[in-house]
Amino acid sequence: MTSATPNIRLYVEHDLGTDREFLIDGNQGHYLINVMRMKEGEVVALFNGRDGEWMARLEKVGKGKALVRVLGHLEDQAEEPDLWYLFAPVKKARLDYMVEKATELGVSLIRPVMTRRTIVDRVKEERLRANAIEAAEQCGRLTVPEIEEPVKLDKLLAGWPDDRLIMFCDEAGGEGAQDIKPVGEAVAQAGQSSGLTKWAILIGPEGGFSPEERQMIRSHPQTVAVTLGPRILRADTAAVAAISLWQSFAGDWQ
Amino acid sequence: MTSATPNIRLYVEHDLGTDREFLIDGNQGHYLINVMRMKEGEVVALFNGRDGEWMARLEKVGKGKALVRVLGHLEDQAEEPDLWYLFAPVKKARLDYMVEKATELGVSLIRPVMTRRTIVDRVKEERLRANAIEAAEQCGRLTVPEIEEPVKLDKLLAGWPDDRLIMFCDEAGGEGAQDIKPVGEAVAQAGQSSGLTKWAILIGPEGGFSPEERQMIRSHPQTVAVTLGPRILRADTAAVAAISLWQSFAGDWQ
Repeated sequence: MTSATPNIRLYVEHDLGTDREFLIDGNQGHYLINVMRMKEGEVVALFNGRDGEWMARLEKVGKGKALVRVLGHLEDQAEEPDLWYLFAPVKKARLDYMVEKATELGVSLIRPVMTRRTIVDRVKEERLRANAIEAAEQCGRLTVPEIEEPVKLDKLLAGWPDDRLIMFCDEAGGEGAQDIKPVGEAVAQAGQSSGLTKWAILIGPEGGFSPEERQMIRSHPQTVAVTLGPRILRADTAAVAAISLWQSFAGDWQ
Repeated sequence: MTSATPNIRLYVEHDLGTDREFLIDGNQGHYLINVMRMKEGEVVALFNGRDGEWMARLEKVGKGKALVRVLGHLEDQAEEPDLWYLFAPVKKARLDYMVEKATELGVSLIRPVMTRRTIVDRVKEERLRANAIEAAEQCGRLTVPEIEEPVKLDKLLAGWPDDRLIMFCDEAGGEGAQDIKPVGEAVAQAGQSSGLTKWAILIGPEGGFSPEERQMIRSHPQTVAVTLGPRILRADTAAVAAISLWQSFAGDWQ
């Protein structure tokens, strides 16, 4: 980042272009004015997932709100890896954490999956979306991942799109698993043999999937089972590991 | 894991071999008897970092303690990847977390490094060691990583062994960095050109290293600078990502 890049990045819904003006209020206004104590004339960076990143100036500042005017363009909107992150929700704190990490790591969509051993049944999508926005603002990405509503595992698999592969990481992967490969190998081979480029990463709950669920996932034609090494990983460790590996072999870490 | 493998694994200091008997008391005894309510005749798995993994039977059970007798051998002690994890400590909760994750991910040594921007000055090694033991018991590994006392960055680099490479992950990596490569490429090239096989992963503090520190690290002959993608990662995300990638390219995830 050059010294001209503003310290604060905000995600907004507004269209972005030179001289566009709009009000920033609510939580974001409170953050800018009350928490960060920004003053008239100072600048922020804005992005909306469509128009890239723009610099904007605080034209007028009030109690917990600011009128901003877009000055100029900082970064183009660019193609980002198409990677879904599907996970079985665990305790609330971990849920926030999972969404934050997945966003930092560049996934394009996040969706909770309900399994037999899922510990948390009620997922507040608004909260997850707020987590995703904050993580996106802080990590420098130009989009916010979509947050999809929770879905039951069987329904997810029954309606699975035929242009997307599923990287399946299950902690019981070692058991009698002849076709389980390391991530790099699995991604390269499956990509080649299927001709598909879109992926999803499916991480099981703490305690793993049930045998029936594992069978259901493993028998799906687009499932690619992978190993994340010889030790048992917690679900949140597995998530960060799997996404990082995918980014290194098939995403934007190459 | 077969159904004969005990559910509970404990790390002990005792030598392990058939018919050896010893007392398990203190925290471990409390855990076995009061928390897990184990009974006479039941079995546990034991490892000591030297003799592999063994099954042991609770011969006699008392208040918060048990006399165990080693029955037989479950797993051989095997070579593990030689990977040091060096990190700048952040808040206490994250510290525990970092040690837990690094242990799950198979590092052989963990050492806090004090930098200008380190937030926590006092590191309790006993606590870190307890975290490492618990994580080792739960993830199935046959050793517990060594916990080294904290060291200042300049002293660490001044005394650096000449048979070990340093994978340097710094969040400011993108700034004018011509020689920064993705992890796979960096590990392969540096390994080949240096002939060295031992590695350490160095993760900076939240807020990154200072410019002087970054210069000091980058100029060390055994430093290999890597990028972890185009987004800014938090220190704990970077740690899991970097270790996972190293394990995939040079460790036991291959």
